[in-house]
Amino acid sequence: MAFFLMGDSAAVGLLMQMLLLFGAAKLFAEFAQRLGQPAVVGELIAGVLIGPSVLDWVRPNEFLTVFSELGVLFLLFQVGLELKDFKLMRVGWDALLIAVAGVLLPFIVGRQIMLALGHPGLEAAFVGASMVATSVGITAKVLADLKLLNVRASKIILAAAIIDDVLGLIVLAVVSSLAKGTVNYYELGITAVLAIGFTLIVAQFGTKAFEKLVPRMDRRMSGAHNQFVLSILLLFALSVLASIAGVAAIIGAFLAGMALASSVDEHTKEQTAGVTEFLVPFFLAGIGLHMDLSVFQNPSTLWVCGLILLAAILSKFLGCGLGALRLGVRDAARVGIGMVPRGEVGMVVAQIGNSIGVIPKDVYAIVVFMSIATTMVAPPLLKLAYRDLIKQQAQEPTQSL
Amino acid sequence: MAFFLMGDSAAVGLLMQMLLLFGAAKLFAEFAQRLGQPAVVGELIAGVLIGPSVLDWVRPNEFLTVFSELGVLFLLFQVGLELKDFKLMRVGWDALLIAVAGVLLPFIVGRQIMLALGHPGLEAAFVGASMVATSVGITAKVLADLKLLNVRASKIILAAAIIDDVLGLIVLAVVSSLAKGTVNYYELGITAVLAIGFTLIVAQFGTKAFEKLVPRMDRRMSGAHNQFVLSILLLFALSVLASIAGVAAIIGAFLAGMALASSVDEHTKEQTAGVTEFLVPFFLAGIGLHMDLSVFQNPSTLWVCGLILLAAILSKFLGCGLGALRLGVRDAARVGIGMVPRGEVGMVVAQIGNSIGVIPKDVYAIVVFMSIATTMVAPPLLKLAYRDLIKQQAQEPTQSL
Repeated sequence: MAFFLMGDSAAVGLLMQMLLLFGAAKLFAEFAQRLGQPAVVGELIAGVLIGPSVLDWVRPNEFLTVFSELGVLFLLFQVGLELKDFKLMRVGWDALLIAVAGVLLPFIVGRQIMLALGHPGLEAAFVGASMVATSVGITAKVLADLKLLNVRASKIILAAAIIDDVLGLIVLAVVSSLAKGTVNYYELGITAVLAIGFTLIVAQFGTKAFEKLVPRMDRRMSGAHNQFVLSILLLFALSVLASIAGVAAIIGAFLAGMALASSVDEHTKEQTAGVTEFLVPFFLAGIGLHMDLSVFQNPSTLWVCGLILLAAILSKFLGCGLGALRLGVRDAARVGIGMVPRGEVGMVVAQIGNSIGVIPKDVYAIVVFMSIATTMVAPPLLKLAYRDLIKQQAQEPTQSL
Repeated sequence: MAFFLMGDSAAVGLLMQMLLLFGAAKLFAEFAQRLGQPAVVGELIAGVLIGPSVLDWVRPNEFLTVFSELGVLFLLFQVGLELKDFKLMRVGWDALLIAVAGVLLPFIVGRQIMLALGHPGLEAAFVGASMVATSVGITAKVLADLKLLNVRASKIILAAAIIDDVLGLIVLAVVSSLAKGTVNYYELGITAVLAIGFTLIVAQFGTKAFEKLVPRMDRRMSGAHNQFVLSILLLFALSVLASIAGVAAIIGAFLAGMALASSVDEHTKEQTAGVTEFLVPFFLAGIGLHMDLSVFQNPSTLWVCGLILLAAILSKFLGCGLGALRLGVRDAARVGIGMVPRGEVGMVVAQIGNSIGVIPKDVYAIVVFMSIATTMVAPPLLKLAYRDLIKQQAQEPTQSL
């Protein structure tokens, strides 16, 4: 890879892939919206269409993966930044209950189905773990597009998704250790404590720290875009720290956004929104690129595929929905649907399982299909579940909680 | 490279490198500004410092190269976007004269020095070609930071740099063909005509086309950020087309910005500015990463290095300055200095020469040193040359031409 600059063909090729992926995503987002569907669905379908399993114009590669990952980091950062008066602790117990139920049910159901179908125990556990995964990015993007991030159900979804993520990584760590032979409970305990400690400390003290620091920085620094620079630095630093602490990088990115939400100005938010808008299509269409439609060629895997998909949707919806029942049926339904997308997280679990030889190729394709299909099914249902609030919001332009 | 998401160590490593590079660039930009120097100088030095030849914290890699390249594309796009009432044709003849003089003199001087030092003819020609290169990004960034893009000298620099770029690529094509054996003048002619045609047509008709198209698009499309999406698409599309037409991708990016300058709104400009601010440090510090200080270890290459650097500065300054003399001494000096940075373009020419076996390793290091040193020397001199206008601008906030 040399420079675009001089017409190096590999570099120009990457530029063309980016153009195609971004262009197709935005074109299909427009189509989806004209059909009354969330834009996200269009972007996912665009990825499937131009990906290897249909037109084969663009294949997943390392560079597109990096853009996709940065996309989801910026997406979660932006979501954190746009939240008003969000206290993780305030919704903590509700969220914890939702997350725990939404982890246990999918894991048990996924594992039991695979066992019942005669698959080995470890493979079944890995499929269960992949059904635990929640791709909060998808739901957050749909809610952000609808400008409904700041209602109760949305805030609870975000909080539950964070806890779900920590739990999901612990489940993944356990099944990965099982695959290697033994589980080191001591190490696992340390990771869990670190992960939870990191999240709680940043969530608790981040906002106040930056409310003090940002005005001071503005007075002392000479640069023109200090708040923007600070935003990028904090986003990257907390993403790295989160990874080191054992939480997903996106949680770090989300916490960075939350910490800065009340201290950076509108210019800065608009500038980071620019980066987010640029990168997110690579995340969404990038998920679609991984779709492997070969699962439909084999009738015997086809029905397993359908069963797993149905189980993935219902177990998450029921698990989280029941956990949220205290909030009333409507919010419980919103939360249940909001947690359904498995997106990139489910895919990565399957990838890890495949790379260590626990998940065979056909099951891998099924899990990837389940991850992408849950991601496509949820946004239209989510829009439906939020329809009262969408109407209400159309009448009164600003609202919160 | 898997997902940051799950703490994949290579991915987290990339995230850390990005954090280091971005952070160091912005820290040293602040230092530079406190010393009254352009921020650009600090960002370049930051790259040298954390790069392999000093601290060795971050080494150039493919991913950082892609960010660096996108950075310079967005930089030129943003420069085009911020230009007011810029007509390539209106400054065309002045710019042509400057560009031709600024191509011939450095090429002849560079080649003669190498020949006089006993280097082979082809190697001498390649060094000459690397001295022809102009990194318009550096100068444009300095002028944009000073908010002096819209004065006469700056506009002429931009126009001359575009023509210089076309000429530079033709020179490079000729010397590369010489290295392969024969020069296909027919093919070269086609490339030149295509390159010039592409540039002139977009420059001439782009603005009017988008002044008609953008309001129409705004009425018809449902998306929330249509102008931003259009900007990204045009930026990528013209960059790809420029590469295919045989001009550098950055020229396409610049033309895309120019074409949209009068039709997109301030929100869109702020959003694309966000992407630019995010990516440009990877371009600037990325240049610094390539510095190879080993040239200083050998006294015999050291003085060649000094000689080439001096020749590079003087030949470009005098060539372009004399070409611009009609504009008065002050503007001539501004133009002469503005064209001095060789930046990434000089480095790429050297890289191509090295990869086809024409430029040996020690000469390659010298050319890279020349490219980076000219890039560091120019910004402070540029600030000095523009000091009247900087003062004037401090008194009257808005101005143009």
